[in-house]
Amino acid sequence: MRDVQINLGNRSYSIFIGQGVLDAAGTLLTGLPTGRKALLVTNPTVARLYADRVTAALTRAGIDVVRALIPDGEQYKALQSAEMLYDRAFAAGLDRGCPVVALGGGVVGDLAGFVAATYMRGVPFVQIPTTLLAQVDSSVGGKVAVNHPRGKNIIGAFYQPVLVLSDTGTLRTLGAGEVRSGLAEVIKYGIIKDAAFFTWLENNLDHVLALEPAALAHVIEQSCLSKARVVEEDETEQGQRAILNLGHTVGHAIEALAGYGRYSHGEAVAIGTAVAARLAVDLGLLQENEEHRIRNLLARAGLPLEVPGDISTDAVMAAMYGDKKTRAGQITFILPAAIGRAVIRPGMAEEPIARAIDNCRAGSD
Amino acid sequence: MRDVQINLGNRSYSIFIGQGVLDAAGTLLTGLPTGRKALLVTNPTVARLYADRVTAALTRAGIDVVRALIPDGEQYKALQSAEMLYDRAFAAGLDRGCPVVALGGGVVGDLAGFVAATYMRGVPFVQIPTTLLAQVDSSVGGKVAVNHPRGKNIIGAFYQPVLVLSDTGTLRTLGAGEVRSGLAEVIKYGIIKDAAFFTWLENNLDHVLALEPAALAHVIEQSCLSKARVVEEDETEQGQRAILNLGHTVGHAIEALAGYGRYSHGEAVAIGTAVAARLAVDLGLLQENEEHRIRNLLARAGLPLEVPGDISTDAVMAAMYGDKKTRAGQITFILPAAIGRAVIRPGMAEEPIARAIDNCRAGSD
Ligand SMILES: NC(=O)c1ccc[n+]([C@@H]2O[C@H](COP(=O)([O-])OP(=O)(O)OC[C@H]3O[C@@H](n4cnc5c(N)ncnc54)[C@H](O)[C@@H]3O)[C@@H](O)[C@H]2O)c1
Ligand SMILES: NC(=O)c1ccc[n+]([C@@H]2O[C@H](COP(=O)([O-])OP(=O)(O)OC[C@H]3O[C@@H](n4cnc5c(N)ncnc54)[C@H](O)[C@@H]3O)[C@@H](O)[C@H]2O)c1
Ligand SMILES: [Zn+2]
Ligand SMILES: [Zn+2]
Repeated sequence: MRDVQINLGNRSYSIFIGQGVLDAAGTLLTGLPTGRKALLVTNPTVARLYADRVTAALTRAGIDVVRALIPDGEQYKALQSAEMLYDRAFAAGLDRGCPVVALGGGVVGDLAGFVAATYMRGVPFVQIPTTLLAQVDSSVGGKVAVNHPRGKNIIGAFYQPVLVLSDTGTLRTLGAGEVRSGLAEVIKYGIIKDAAFFTWLENNLDHVLALEPAALAHVIEQSCLSKARVVEEDETEQGQRAILNLGHTVGHAIEALAGYGRYSHGEAVAIGTAVAARLAVDLGLLQENEEHRIRNLLARAGLPLEVPGDISTDAVMAAMYGDKKTRAGQITFILPAAIGRAVIRPGMAEEPIARAIDNCRAGSD
Repeated sequence: MRDVQINLGNRSYSIFIGQGVLDAAGTLLTGLPTGRKALLVTNPTVARLYADRVTAALTRAGIDVVRALIPDGEQYKALQSAEMLYDRAFAAGLDRGCPVVALGGGVVGDLAGFVAATYMRGVPFVQIPTTLLAQVDSSVGGKVAVNHPRGKNIIGAFYQPVLVLSDTGTLRTLGAGEVRSGLAEVIKYGIIKDAAFFTWLENNLDHVLALEPAALAHVIEQSCLSKARVVEEDETEQGQRAILNLGHTVGHAIEALAGYGRYSHGEAVAIGTAVAARLAVDLGLLQENEEHRIRNLLARAGLPLEVPGDISTDAVMAAMYGDKKTRAGQITFILPAAIGRAVIRPGMAEEPIARAIDNCRAGSD
């Protein structure tokens, strides 16, 4: 079992990573000053696979478990679900000391975290992420949120967990698409922050794709460390934290334009990362051989690199700049300056971005 | 204009107090790093009286004002109202830098504060409190919340404003009952924290009741200072902040049992304060002449001191202990140990509390 320490003053906490850490939930939680009743938030898919084990672990440690199921799907990361959870917590008599435990992917984690942040002005929050994306990204950093009908993550808070348990064993039941989606973020950390980890990924990707526990644990540990170091410096996203958005500016635009569902988040981010690398080369920031290494690793992970033919460059530009053309020149772009180092480029002009998008289409070189 | 500084590290801010500070809203706000568009949250009662002045002040400073009215009443301090405000903010294009400005009493302040804390994971929050209670209590300390159908303030956060403007002029349009309700909290600060202020109140209560601007400004300043010093030591209510609950344990029970509306919050707190003083004398903690000074000052402010005949001591005890009789002996009571000093007494037995309640009934001495 590995232990990544997140240092945020009196909001510091540990991430435990390993095969079977799920079953230690009770022991680890009772080491913290929390109440003896917990709200376990999950969805039917994950509950069927893991809720009984988590419940047993907590019960063995003397913690009463109140289970709350939210239907599976991004559309349930909503204020209505939060309301349902407040009701459940209140009816079960949970007070300010009782933890909310999220068991599931990023959807469950973000929703349960929002409830933990706001129920009785904040109760202890425990994350048990069960997707690769949640283990390497959404469970680290303290962003919690629900969606608004007109936009993602519009209602939320910065709220740190007291404990995170990433069980590599849970990834065996995950679809291959979900694993790929998480890998796009994993590769991102190598690019923006950690050249040695990027090289390790080049050498060990096959072990990761085979879901070997030791390889997964290393991936999760290094990803958490990278993200944690960025978050520690900028907890509430005032500046440097923006480098975590590498690939996301174009990625979000493509995700939305393709219609949510056609590309997973990670696939769209991979395309966005390819565009950012191209742009960085065009601007003389990145060496061409490093762009090739980035593209190769993404491709080996099964991720797409090309802007699809049915989405025009103009459409991508419009989606990125929002409705308001008045904001032209106002885009902040994250660019790889080398493998292991990213820079924040505010006020990027439109023209070079459009050219990089054009250059990331099928048959463009 | 007086300026009370609240010291909470990078969440520090100023409270400006005085006749007409409302009209300086724009100037003061543009001194802070906030966006050029503001959501002004208020209710029809307050809007009719003050919204145009605040809007004009903000507009003069180049800030676009988006006005959002919530109906007047505690029942609108609810998640549904918050949703309406998220919609309004999003439709108007407010981003992470744009302030939410609360203009009104504690209801508007708590609701708008909750929205400010959670819209886009937190935007700048400005309080313009217009009731005495809001100026001396709810606008200080960073507690924001909405009610749940089954309990008050169940959904909330700790979130500090960037600026508070307390205009003493706004209190002239307040009903006498609302002024009295605020005075119960003002007298509370003297009892728990500040003997000199208590004496000042004894000497100057008539000026306060006449709403003389200088007297009001002193009352608000000293109250904010007392509450701020408590909050600075214990921002998220882990311990010492509990002394602010003097009079509130019994007060909340009476408020609920009488049916909300029969006693104002301040009236119920005054009765609770009288009970706490009696109990403190019974336990040998407080001198009898100090109890008399407390009772006299509350009475001169027009506040009640007696537990009403139709509410039995058993009912008050049951309401305080909650449904669960198993929690007997688990009540934490705040007791005045002298004028100017309160103590936290955990695990108070039931019997002396019941006796103090009995001794605070009409004709009991
Ligand atoms: N808070 C943050 O910092 C942050 C960062 C990135 C993404 N997010 C959010 O995370 C969400 C996406 O998270 P996600 O990709 O984990 O999606 P998800 O939570 O929807 O999970 C994907 C699917 O996998 C299922 N699943 C989960 N664990 C499983 C397991 N072990 N075995 C089998 N099936 C399993 C889920 O039921 C779901 O159907 C989005 O809402 C996004 O906004 C948040
Ligand atoms: N956040 C905290 O720390 C804290 C502390 C104490 C109380 N509270 C909350 O505050 C709320 C009570 O606040 P309140 O007593 O200000 O009640 P309120 O906001 O309901 O205001 C009382 C009445 O006065 C009206 N009003 C407001 N300003 C006026 C003015 N200048 N002239 C004429 N009418 C005016 C209002 O429209 C309302 O009808 C409760 O919800 C309580 O939970 C919060
Ligand atoms: Zn992402
Ligand atoms: Zn009060």
